[in-house]
Amino acid sequence: MLRYLTGGESHGKCMLAILDGVPAGLSVDAASIDRELSRRMFGYGRGKRMAIESDKVEILSGLRKGVSIGSPISIEISNVDRSIDRLPVVLEPRPGHADLPGVLKYGLNDVRDVFERASARETVARVGVGAICKLFLAEFGIKITSHVTAIGSIESSVRSLGFSQLITMSDASPVRCADPKASALMCKEISLSIESGDSLGGVFEVVVAGVPAGIGSYTQWDRKMDALLAAGMMSIQAIKGVSFGLGFESAKRKGSLVHDEIFYNKKNGFYGHTNNAGGIEGGMTNGEDIVIRCAMKPIATLRKPLASVNIKTKKPIKATVERSDVCAVPAAAAIGESVAAFEIANAFMEKFGCDSMREIRRNYDGYIEQVRKF
Amino acid sequence: MLRYLTGGESHGKCMLAILDGVPAGLSVDAASIDRELSRRMFGYGRGKRMAIESDKVEILSGLRKGVSIGSPISIEISNVDRSIDRLPVVLEPRPGHADLPGVLKYGLNDVRDVFERASARETVARVGVGAICKLFLAEFGIKITSHVTAIGSIESSVRSLGFSQLITMSDASPVRCADPKASALMCKEISLSIESGDSLGGVFEVVVAGVPAGIGSYTQWDRKMDALLAAGMMSIQAIKGVSFGLGFESAKRKGSLVHDEIFYNKKNGFYGHTNNAGGIEGGMTNGEDIVIRCAMKPIATLRKPLASVNIKTKKPIKATVERSDVCAVPAAAAIGESVAAFEIANAFMEKFGCDSMREIRRNYDGYIEQVRKF
Amino acid sequence: MLRYLTGGESHGKCMLAILDGVPAGLSVDAASIDRELSRRMFGYGRGKRMAIESDKVEILSGLRKGVSIGSPISIEISNVDRSIDRLPVVLEPRPGHADLPGVLKYGLNDVRDVFERASARETVARVGVGAICKLFLAEFGIKITSHVTAIGSIESSVRSLGFSQLITMSDASPVRCADPKASALMCKEISLSIESGDSLGGVFEVVVAGVPAGIGSYTQWDRKMDALLAAGMMSIQAIKGVSFGLGFESAKRKGSLVHDEIFYNKKNGFYGHTNNAGGIEGGMTNGEDIVIRCAMKPIATLRKPLASVNIKTKKPIKATVERSDVCAVPAAAAIGESVAAFEIANAFMEKFGCDSMREIRRNYDGYIEQVRKF
Amino acid sequence: MLRYLTGGESHGKCMLAILDGVPAGLSVDAASIDRELSRRMFGYGRGKRMAIESDKVEILSGLRKGVSIGSPISIEISNVDRSIDRLPVVLEPRPGHADLPGVLKYGLNDVRDVFERASARETVARVGVGAICKLFLAEFGIKITSHVTAIGSIESSVRSLGFSQLITMSDASPVRCADPKASALMCKEISLSIESGDSLGGVFEVVVAGVPAGIGSYTQWDRKMDALLAAGMMSIQAIKGVSFGLGFESAKRKGSLVHDEIFYNKKNGFYGHTNNAGGIEGGMTNGEDIVIRCAMKPIATLRKPLASVNIKTKKPIKATVERSDVCAVPAAAAIGESVAAFEIANAFMEKFGCDSMREIRRNYDGYIEQVRKF
Repeated sequence: MLRYLTGGESHGKCMLAILDGVPAGLSVDAASIDRELSRRMFGYGRGKRMAIESDKVEILSGLRKGVSIGSPISIEISNVDRSIDRLPVVLEPRPGHADLPGVLKYGLNDVRDVFERASARETVARVGVGAICKLFLAEFGIKITSHVTAIGSIESSVRSLGFSQLITMSDASPVRCADPKASALMCKEISLSIESGDSLGGVFEVVVAGVPAGIGSYTQWDRKMDALLAAGMMSIQAIKGVSFGLGFESAKRKGSLVHDEIFYNKKNGFYGHTNNAGGIEGGMTNGEDIVIRCAMKPIATLRKPLASVNIKTKKPIKATVERSDVCAVPAAAAIGESVAAFEIANAFMEKFGCDSMREIRRNYDGYIEQVRKF
Repeated sequence: MLRYLTGGESHGKCMLAILDGVPAGLSVDAASIDRELSRRMFGYGRGKRMAIESDKVEILSGLRKGVSIGSPISIEISNVDRSIDRLPVVLEPRPGHADLPGVLKYGLNDVRDVFERASARETVARVGVGAICKLFLAEFGIKITSHVTAIGSIESSVRSLGFSQLITMSDASPVRCADPKASALMCKEISLSIESGDSLGGVFEVVVAGVPAGIGSYTQWDRKMDALLAAGMMSIQAIKGVSFGLGFESAKRKGSLVHDEIFYNKKNGFYGHTNNAGGIEGGMTNGEDIVIRCAMKPIATLRKPLASVNIKTKKPIKATVERSDVCAVPAAAAIGESVAAFEIANAFMEKFGCDSMREIRRNYDGYIEQVRKF
Repeated sequence: MLRYLTGGESHGKCMLAILDGVPAGLSVDAASIDRELSRRMFGYGRGKRMAIESDKVEILSGLRKGVSIGSPISIEISNVDRSIDRLPVVLEPRPGHADLPGVLKYGLNDVRDVFERASARETVARVGVGAICKLFLAEFGIKITSHVTAIGSIESSVRSLGFSQLITMSDASPVRCADPKASALMCKEISLSIESGDSLGGVFEVVVAGVPAGIGSYTQWDRKMDALLAAGMMSIQAIKGVSFGLGFESAKRKGSLVHDEIFYNKKNGFYGHTNNAGGIEGGMTNGEDIVIRCAMKPIATLRKPLASVNIKTKKPIKATVERSDVCAVPAAAAIGESVAAFEIANAFMEKFGCDSMREIRRNYDGYIEQVRKF
Repeated sequence: MLRYLTGGESHGKCMLAILDGVPAGLSVDAASIDRELSRRMFGYGRGKRMAIESDKVEILSGLRKGVSIGSPISIEISNVDRSIDRLPVVLEPRPGHADLPGVLKYGLNDVRDVFERASARETVARVGVGAICKLFLAEFGIKITSHVTAIGSIESSVRSLGFSQLITMSDASPVRCADPKASALMCKEISLSIESGDSLGGVFEVVVAGVPAGIGSYTQWDRKMDALLAAGMMSIQAIKGVSFGLGFESAKRKGSLVHDEIFYNKKNGFYGHTNNAGGIEGGMTNGEDIVIRCAMKPIATLRKPLASVNIKTKKPIKATVERSDVCAVPAAAAIGESVAAFEIANAFMEKFGCDSMREIRRNYDGYIEQVRKF
C-alpha cells in the first residue's frame, strides 16, 4: 500500500510530503523530482510569482546513496516567502475559492488562515510524490504525459497522436498543446485575458501508456481504478470535471459506435482498434492507454475583482487580488500526471507486491507471462 | 465513520450490504428502501428483465422495532434467478464490459465468473445503502433528487428549476427528464434504438439541497467533498464522466463569468445569485445546492453484437447478448442519488458526530447557530 | 487488501459478514466453516445456551461451484431465537459488560439495545471469516492452532510441544488444555464455579506455523504484524491482555536470556534454537512459529449477580443474569485462531498479491526461492 | 479523523511527521513538544548516545502565530549524526531486532538499510505527534502520565496512587518508578547490568485520566478503543505484551472479584469503587482512568554480543554492538503516553467533531450534559 500526506502553507516555511510504502531498490534522484516541479510552474500566462518560484526538492528520508530502502520517502520544498505570521489579516473571501466555506467550517476570523493551505501551492508536494511514483512506474515501462486540449474557447484538434509524438508536440508548445495552430491561438487568448484583467480555464488530458490489463478491480465499489483516478483528479484545485476516453461524448453516441471491439493476434494478444473506453473497463485497466480528461475552471483570482462581503462588517466589497496568474492549465496538466502516477503505482503494487523492486519485477514478469499465455 | 461493503452475484442467492456506522435513533423502514429500489428499476427502455424484477429488501440487522441502535445495518435483496452454479460457461468477452480485463486479472476460464459480479445488478445493494443514508439526511432537511439531462443526442433544456419543481417534473417523465419536450423526444430515440438493436447512454444530474456550508475539507488531498463524490459516481457501472456545477462548460468561459459572487443579507447570511460552482468550493460544500453531472455510456450489450474473440480458441466471434435493456440512464440517476447520499452522510457525520441522532442534532444545531452568527 | 464487516444482533435474524478481497481460485466449503463454528461453541463449562446452538453457515455470495471467483464472500449464520423486537426492556447494566458505557454513548434507554450487539455472539461471524482465511493460508502450508494455558488459578505446564502434538493433546482435552493433569484440574475448577455461581477466565495461546519470514513491516508504525494481531486479539470480547512469545516474562529476564540467537545451515537457512520472540521481530514474522498469548477475564454474567443501578430510577439493584456460561476460554481460543488467520492472510496478500491463487502461489514461490538463495 | 505518517532514519537528516486532522484554534508551542521529547530521552541506564541527543522540534506547518488553523501540522527533529550514506556496511543481523527478517523481506544486502529505519529513534517523531495530541486533550481536562512498575525482576509495589501523586512520585524517580524503594533497587539492578554487559527490560503503566464514558465502540470489531490502543502500544519497539486494568491477573481471579460493580450518586453519576477493567468495557471508555500496562523486552543490543551469522559468508559471528543503552523502560513509558494520546484524541474527535476547538468544546459540553442528565 502506497499512501501519502502533505503539509505546508503557501507562505509558511515549506511544503512537504511523506510517501509511505515505496519498495526497496528504486533509484530516486532530486533532479528527476525537480524536473517535474519545474513542469508544474510552466506555461504561458503564469504571473510574476511563478517567475520567482524555482522549486527545488530536498529529500529528507527514505534513501541511502540515492536508492530507496523501503522506508517512507520524505520530501521538502522550501518557500521563498515565509512571512505567514506577519502577513495582514484578510477579511474578504474571494469568489470561487475555499475562502468563505473555509472560514465558516473552521470558525476562523481571517480568510488567510484558509487560503494559506487551500492554495494550489500545495500541489508542489503532490508533484514531488508523483515524480517518485513516475520513477517507479518507468521501471515497468509505464509512461505518463499530458497535453492541453482547450484553453477558454480555443480547442486543440488533436485526437489521437502516438504517445511519443504527443510528448514532442506538447513539449514544444508554450501551453502544452500538441496542436501548433491551436497553441498559437491559445497564447493569443491568454494575452487578451491579461489585458482585460480576466482569467481562463481549459481542459487537459493525461495519458498513461504501458499499464498492463487488470489493474484495479470491479469486485468492490471503492476499488475501481477509474473511481480512484477520478478522486485524485477532482482533488486538484480548480478541477470541475473528469472523464475517461470519450467521456461526455460517449453519452451522445450509439452503443455500436462507443464500445471497443475486441481482436486478437499472436503478437499483441487481445487488442482493440479503438480506445473509446480510455483504457478502463469495469474499473480495471484493459491494456490500452489510460486517457483522462479534466476540466479546469478559470483562475479564481481576477485583476478585475468580483463582488464579495467583508466577513467582519458584512459590507459589500471587492475581493482581494492575491496573485496574478491568468491561466494555469498547462501546469494543472503536469499536476494531473503526478496524481495519476500515484494512483496507478498504488494499484499496481496491490497486484504485484510492494517490498522490493526485484520482487515486484519477478511478480510482474510472471503475470505478463500468464496474460501472454492466457 | 460510515462505511459499507456489498456482496452478491447477479444470479447468486442475493445481493447484500453491511452499512457500518449508522447512529442510534434513526427510524428505518423497508418500505422507504423498497421505494428507492423501484426507482432503480425505472425508465423507458428497460428490457424484460426489469419487468420481472421487483426487488424487496430484507433488513437483517441493526434495528429494534424499526429504529437503529448504533449497530451495523445489514440488508439483503433476493435474486429471482439463482442459477449461478448451473449457468453455462461463457467464452466471449463483451466489448465495453469488465469481461476481458476481468478474466485476465483473475486468471479465469469463464467470462461468467467476471460479469456475475461486475454486473450493474450490484448497485441494488448500493441503492439500499443510499436509501438509509437518505433517511438520515432527511432528518437534517437534506434532500436529494436527480434528472436526466440527455439521452443520446437529445438534450434537456432545463438549467435551473427549483428543487421541488425539479422533482415534480422529472417524476412525471418516463425517462426522468424535467423538460417535457425533450422527454418525448428521448422516448422516441429509445424506441428507434430498440428497433435498430442499438443502445443509448446519456447524462444525468444529481442535485442535493440543504447541505450546510463546510462539509468536506481542503486540508488534505483525500478529504475533498468533490473528490469523494467523484469517486463514488465514477464507480457506478458505465459512468465515464463526472462534473460539478458548470463542469466542462466552466473551462470555456472567462473567469468573470464563472465564479459565483458573494452577497450577504441578514435573512440568508452569505449567499450567491449564481451556483456555477455546483455547491462546492475548495473541496467543501458552500451551502448552495450540490449539482453533480454524470455521463453514462450506452449499455454495452447490444442486440447487434460487436466483434469479440473466444478466449479459449482465440477465434473471432460475436459477443454474447446477455440482456436487452436499451437505455438505463434514468435508473443510473437514481443510483447516483444513493451514492451521493452515502458520501454526504459520511462527511456530515465526520463534522457532527456519529453516535446518536439526538447528539448529532444538538451538534448540528450548534454549528448552524455558529454560522448564523458568524 | 482483505477486509470485512460483520452485522447481526444476538437475538436478531442472523449474524453475517462480508469478506472482501478473497482471491479467485480458492475452494471454500460450508463444512470447513461449520467445523470452525463448532469449535467456537466447544468447552467444558458452557451453559445450556451452547447446547441448543448448533451454528451452520450459509454462503450467500462469492463462490461458483464451491470455488471463489474474486468476489466478496458473504456468510450468514441464522439465530435460533429471533425475538429481538419482543424481548423486554432491560434497565440494569451488568458490571464488566459494554452495558453502561454503551447506553451513555448512544443515549439509549434500554440496555438490551447495547448487549444485543456487544455480545460475544458477534464472534460467530468473525469465526466464519477466519475459517475462510484458514483455508487460504493452508494452501501455503500455514497452520493455526491454539491451546488453553490457564483457567483461573490452574496453569498448564506445557511450554513447547511440537505443533501437531499440540493439536492432538489440546483436541483431546475438554478445555483445550494440552497438559492432561492441568486439564483435569481445570474441569474440576469449572465444576466448583458452577456450584458457587461464580465464573472463570483464563489464558490461551494461539500458535501459527509455517509463515515465511518478512510478513508485516517496521517501516511505518501501523504496519507492524504484532500491532495488527494485538488489535485483533484485543477486540475479542473479554480479552484484557495480549502478548507475543515470552511476553510479560521477557520483561523479567536479562537480555542475554531473551533474544533468540541466529544460526544457519544449508538445510534450514537462518534459524534459531529458541523462539522467545514468538515469531515476530521488528514488527515482522521471522519464520518461527507465531505465538500469541491472550488473557481472558471471567465471564461477566454471574449467577450470583453483582451490584448495579437501575438506569431509570437510579436505585441500586442486582444485575440481570442473561446467560449461564461459567468459562469460555476454550471457545475464545478458537476465536483467537480466526482473528489471527485474518490478520496474517491480509498481510500475506499485501506481499504476494491478492487476485488469484495461481498468481499468489507463483509470487510466493518466487519469494521463498529468493529467501532460500539469500 | 486524525492520522499521521512518520519518516526518517536514525542517521539520516532528520525524523519527521505529518499529523493530519488537527482542529483549528489549538495553541501549539515547540516548548511543550520539546518537553515531551526530553522525557523520551530520560532514564537511568541510557547510554552516551542519549547524553549527546537533545532533540528540539521544528514546526514546519500547520500554525499561524502559534495557533493551529486546521492544516496538517508537520514537525521535524534534526539528527546530529547524519552520516547515513557514509556509514559502513553491516553484515551481522542482531538477535532480537528487525535486522534479519528485514533484509529477507526487502531483499537487502546491508543490515544497516533495515535498522536505520527500524530503530527506536523513529519514536521521536511519534512523541512529537503525541505531544500535540496531549495539548489537545488537556483542553478537555484529559491528562496522561506513566510510571514504571518493573525493571527486570524488581517490581514496584504501587497499585493505586491518585493521579497527581503518581506524577509527583514517578517524576522524582530516575527510572519513573513511583515506589521509592523499588526505584532505588531498579537503579542498582541497572548498574549491575552495565557492569555485566547485559540489558534489562521491564513493565510500565500508562494512565489516562479524565476521558468521558463512551469513547470507542463495540459495534464493529475494529472500532474498539482497547484494540486501537493495543495496536499503538504493541507497535512501539521492544513491546511484547499489552494489557488493560488487571490484565493477565484478571484471568486468575473469579468473576466476582474482577468485575467492577456499578454505583450511583447525584454528584458523580455512575461510578465504581474499583477499576479492575482499566477504564475500558466493551471496547469503550467507561469514565474511569484508562490503565494500560506494557511489557518491554530487554534492549536487544548487548555489550556481550549474541550469536549471529554473517549474511554474506553465512559464517557464525557475534552480533555488532551498535549502541550501549542498558535499559530504556522509563523512556518507553513516555513513548507509550504519546501513543495513547494519539489514539484517544482520534476516537475523541470521532465523537465530538474535528474542525475547530470551539465547535468540539460545544459538542463535548453538550454530551457531558447529556450524560449528567441521563
